[in-house]
Amino acid sequence: MVEFTIRQPDDFHLHLRQNEILKTVAPYVVPFGRVLAMPNLAPEPILTGAQAKAYRSEIYRAFGELGVECQVLTTIQLTEQTTAEMIFDAHDAGVVAAKAYPKGQTTNSDNGILNYDKLHEPLLAMVDCGMVLCLHGETPRPHTFILDRESKFLPILDNLVFTFPKLKIVLEHVTTKDAVERVRNLPATVAATITAHHLVLTLDGVIGDKISPHNFCKPVAKREEDRDALIKAATSGSGKFFFGSDSAPHLKETKECASGCAGIFSGPVLLPVLAEVFKAHNALDELEKFTSMNGSHFYDLPLNDREVTLVQAPLEVPEHIEGIIPFLAGKQLGWQVKA
Amino acid sequence: MVEFTIRQPDDFHLHLRQNEILKTVAPYVVPFGRVLAMPNLAPEPILTGAQAKAYRSEIYRAFGELGVECQVLTTIQLTEQTTAEMIFDAHDAGVVAAKAYPKGQTTNSDNGILNYDKLHEPLLAMVDCGMVLCLHGETPRPHTFILDRESKFLPILDNLVFTFPKLKIVLEHVTTKDAVERVRNLPATVAATITAHHLVLTLDGVIGDKISPHNFCKPVAKREEDRDALIKAATSGSGKFFFGSDSAPHLKETKECASGCAGIFSGPVLLPVLAEVFKAHNALDELEKFTSMNGSHFYDLPLNDREVTLVQAPLEVPEHIEGIIPFLAGKQLGWQVKA
Repeated sequence: MVEFTIRQPDDFHLHLRQNEILKTVAPYVVPFGRVLAMPNLAPEPILTGAQAKAYRSEIYRAFGELGVECQVLTTIQLTEQTTAEMIFDAHDAGVVAAKAYPKGQTTNSDNGILNYDKLHEPLLAMVDCGMVLCLHGETPRPHTFILDRESKFLPILDNLVFTFPKLKIVLEHVTTKDAVERVRNLPATVAATITAHHLVLTLDGVIGDKISPHNFCKPVAKREEDRDALIKAATSGSGKFFFGSDSAPHLKETKECASGCAGIFSGPVLLPVLAEVFKAHNALDELEKFTSMNGSHFYDLPLNDREVTLVQAPLEVPEHIEGIIPFLAGKQLGWQVKA
Repeated sequence: MVEFTIRQPDDFHLHLRQNEILKTVAPYVVPFGRVLAMPNLAPEPILTGAQAKAYRSEIYRAFGELGVECQVLTTIQLTEQTTAEMIFDAHDAGVVAAKAYPKGQTTNSDNGILNYDKLHEPLLAMVDCGMVLCLHGETPRPHTFILDRESKFLPILDNLVFTFPKLKIVLEHVTTKDAVERVRNLPATVAATITAHHLVLTLDGVIGDKISPHNFCKPVAKREEDRDALIKAATSGSGKFFFGSDSAPHLKETKECASGCAGIFSGPVLLPVLAEVFKAHNALDELEKFTSMNGSHFYDLPLNDREVTLVQAPLEVPEHIEGIIPFLAGKQLGWQVKA
């Protein structure tokens, strides 16, 4: 049996939610040393250090009840009302990153950003205290064609990099060749996360045959040449690209309906999917950099001490997990995480 | 109150289904003089004249029970096994057109065409007896990106036109600027139908915000510039473009699920939607050509005698109709068909 051992990975983009859903998804963080918990909770997003602290406690309480061990890194959400003081407070509360959503472009983003110039004050504060800016990279400009929104966000990224040359910026869950190339060409202060599902899907997985709400997320999966660029970036070993799953649980009834939510619940299959993709591209040796080193370096965190072993053995993905349909539900994968 | 009267329209592409669904959708053909009923029934598609005759009787029986008056034109489905004799039989049975689906690309198309060269014999027979070829214009080539499938079908169309210069060909439900331009430039034997929903939707209506299975059809709606090309073609008065709704009822549970069917049930809103689009483009005067003349001319049918009047008055689109969600459900439109 083929085994493959890597330094324990981190997930630098995860939706843990609250209450019952938090308890449902918590067990799937076990293989990870650290997870960066996203702030776009509903109805109350995490906007301040105090809220982030309370959310972290809530998560640790749930982890504790379930015997889950994993370090939780927290974020706050930037709005056009975020002040420098709120940033310093958040930093004091241990928040490592602030997330900017484009207004109205994804789940719980109605309070997102329309005019990125309005972030000047909080971004200066973030440079001061060394907080990372996480960007959902789609233009907030209304009526932009769905497949162009990421590419049309890149000028906003350029402008942020130009204006704040010392600000660390992560372009989250990139989906296009355009974005990969831009991040590669921008200075070392700029990196990108890549999800597991965007290494697998193209738009054909969403609407190519039937319409598949469980493969629908924002930014939506693009063309094969885009997916190939993502795979090339992830398997390249370049420190500019690291793993952030964007695993986002939604109850089945909010996906399989007339107007289904964006978000893919990939938590239960993350490392098996990554192993499969990296193996298929003869790049298993680069997996550890992508999952366990590049992100730590970028976030100035120590590498994890423990190790995780992947075993080449069939994994049957469950059809559903307490009312949530996981990514690749019902499919068989070729790798398991060794207990 | 603004009223607008046109010669009674025809719908040159309609899915009437069978049994209960046939009875549910039948009342919506009332404004039309003639409808061309599509043959891709499940589990038994209409492949022969005898089947078409039986299906026509079934439809007329349902119409009769409901007091619906409308002439039914029938089609057979071409397969790679269709013979010249089957074509002549179908023609004798009153079938006016034969439909070729690309294998596996849309609802009930598993028996569709992979190699269009295999249609040589039946197409020659169709030229002989004057039957029209209706094409679902997406390439049957597997793994073609969803948004490219129509454009990549156009060489197949060119080849058919070149090989059978006397064959009348309708490229059904065109969705791209490419297809519109190609049809415009091909000889007068080639025309295209345009649906009501493709004059309204872009891909943003399917996956731009939430994921909307009731706006999902094949070919899927494309970019704004494509929709604009369709509007321009439909409102141009050119005899090469006429109306075919492709209204396709699917039960709610087969749309709002993990793997939803392609097809939009636009039947209940067809003329109001068309009136709205044509009015918005100052082209109400061209509506009659699109709905009631160009298609008759192409199919060599007499123009309808009766008239239909559209009234500018609010129409509340029902949320559902006996388990089927109509196009624009719950929305308000600005036009009604006068009783």
